[in-house]
Amino acid sequence: MMVELFGGIEGGGTKFVCAIGSGPDDILAETRFPTTTPVETLGKAVAFFVEQQGVHGPLTAIGLASFGPLHPNPTSPTYGQILPTPKHGWTNANLVSLLRDTFNVPIGFDTDVNGAALAEARWGAGQGCDPVIYLTIGTGIGGGVMVHGRLLHGLLHPEMGHIPLPRDPAMDPFPGACPFHGSCFEGLAAGPALEKRWGQRGETLPPDHPAWELEAHYIALALSSYIVTISPQKIILGGGVMQQAHMLPLVRQKVQALLNGYVQSLYLTEWIDQYIVLPGLARRAGVLGALTLAQQAYGQA
Amino acid sequence: MMVELFGGIEGGGTKFVCAIGSGPDDILAETRFPTTTPVETLGKAVAFFVEQQGVHGPLTAIGLASFGPLHPNPTSPTYGQILPTPKHGWTNANLVSLLRDTFNVPIGFDTDVNGAALAEARWGAGQGCDPVIYLTIGTGIGGGVMVHGRLLHGLLHPEMGHIPLPRDPAMDPFPGACPFHGSCFEGLAAGPALEKRWGQRGETLPPDHPAWELEAHYIALALSSYIVTISPQKIILGGGVMQQAHMLPLVRQKVQALLNGYVQSLYLTEWIDQYIVLPGLARRAGVLGALTLAQQAYGQA
Repeated sequence: MMVELFGGIEGGGTKFVCAIGSGPDDILAETRFPTTTPVETLGKAVAFFVEQQGVHGPLTAIGLASFGPLHPNPTSPTYGQILPTPKHGWTNANLVSLLRDTFNVPIGFDTDVNGAALAEARWGAGQGCDPVIYLTIGTGIGGGVMVHGRLLHGLLHPEMGHIPLPRDPAMDPFPGACPFHGSCFEGLAAGPALEKRWGQRGETLPPDHPAWELEAHYIALALSSYIVTISPQKIILGGGVMQQAHMLPLVRQKVQALLNGYVQSLYLTEWIDQYIVLPGLARRAGVLGALTLAQQAYGQA
Repeated sequence: MMVELFGGIEGGGTKFVCAIGSGPDDILAETRFPTTTPVETLGKAVAFFVEQQGVHGPLTAIGLASFGPLHPNPTSPTYGQILPTPKHGWTNANLVSLLRDTFNVPIGFDTDVNGAALAEARWGAGQGCDPVIYLTIGTGIGGGVMVHGRLLHGLLHPEMGHIPLPRDPAMDPFPGACPFHGSCFEGLAAGPALEKRWGQRGETLPPDHPAWELEAHYIALALSSYIVTISPQKIILGGGVMQQAHMLPLVRQKVQALLNGYVQSLYLTEWIDQYIVLPGLARRAGVLGALTLAQQAYGQA
């Protein structure tokens, strides 16, 4: 009997995470390295899997949960590639063919945040809920949605960081940092916006700095928008910004104030602590999602 | 052999539409009347179905696509009721038990806009697309979403009219009319907002009035938000406002300007006329959705 062995790659904009295994309680090996050029970065992933094959035997399938934009539909002519992106050197890089040509196994492919949504719904904080939104707020802002047991795809995939948000110039004179939309959610609340607005990186701002009140306001506006658009049963907030311990209670309180009782559910009143939550899989959500993509590509999960 | 005969009720906030049949090419009878009190309005619907049963024989099932808020999940203790609403007399009205007690047949139940989304995806402008958003812009603003062949439900159902939108006071000093959120989409762009802002009803404003440019701007902001949140393959715009023939091209053009090339799909450039469209079933989308809810309650469709 052949042993099934899955490889997962979380290909983020700043770091790659690779793992071998089948789930949160079965990770045989794991590695992390910074995202540089496609050749160097994929080269390190390939080297890791080749080395692991030497130890554990041949891989059954590989899943890649990558930064986007990308086309997650296998029938698209651009499937497998990174679509045009400001990220230097990555435009049109065909990550899936490189992996397929090297390992000759089925390759699963989707966005990094979709991977995290998939893993959180299967093993993490989203278990038993439908729909589940996973949102990451860090260098960029992106989201994935699980609905009816599957990832939400459409034209391409959600780009939830780019919803337009109201900005009151009296409260926040910073016009926004998104090169496409100025003051969209990402333009107002991702890491680069924090740094440009306050002149220092978010990690260096103390917990009582007014930056956090404003940051929580924008996050709450965005969540209010997703709540009335998608009616999620769970919202999971990942990424660096939410690692500030004071942020989560502030965000919950502001969501309640903004919705103002309109959505009639106990999850928005008494039970909000169970509704807007941190990831259950911590930093492993993305790579565990990639393992699930591998299993799906092989016809499992 | 028993002939299957389905009844559908579109229960809107201003009018009810009832029909007997099984689809757009098979409507045996139809009636429309204004929404007044629950007893009077449901009474008229019951009278219509009783009369039709006399002609066509007993009903197999009934579907009700109603204004909300409501809980579309049959396991909810409030299933079948209108949840607390400013609409006088309707709070806690249990429409489903009344129909079930009267006709003793399966009753399907969902929101009016979900009904329209269901019918448009099955028979109308949304055929072959996934996800499909149906949005109505009139006295209120509401939306329904079909995804993976089923309606999107979650905590309750989407309330897409209530997303927060940016408003520039220099361009629009009107602060918004939503009693819950002030300047949400519905507060800025539904019929009552138009009337309060301009001092006359939307229908009476000429096509070259600046009201329409501003209205198209708000609709385009909302569509941009839905596009990046849900990544729909089709957006269908119903309701009175979109019956102004000049609105649709204006909305499409403004959506393109707002997204600014960020979502890389031909449906947002060359093919946008096939992407943001009017309903395929015209005024019958809601009641045809109700017939589909009836068929689903009976185990079909």
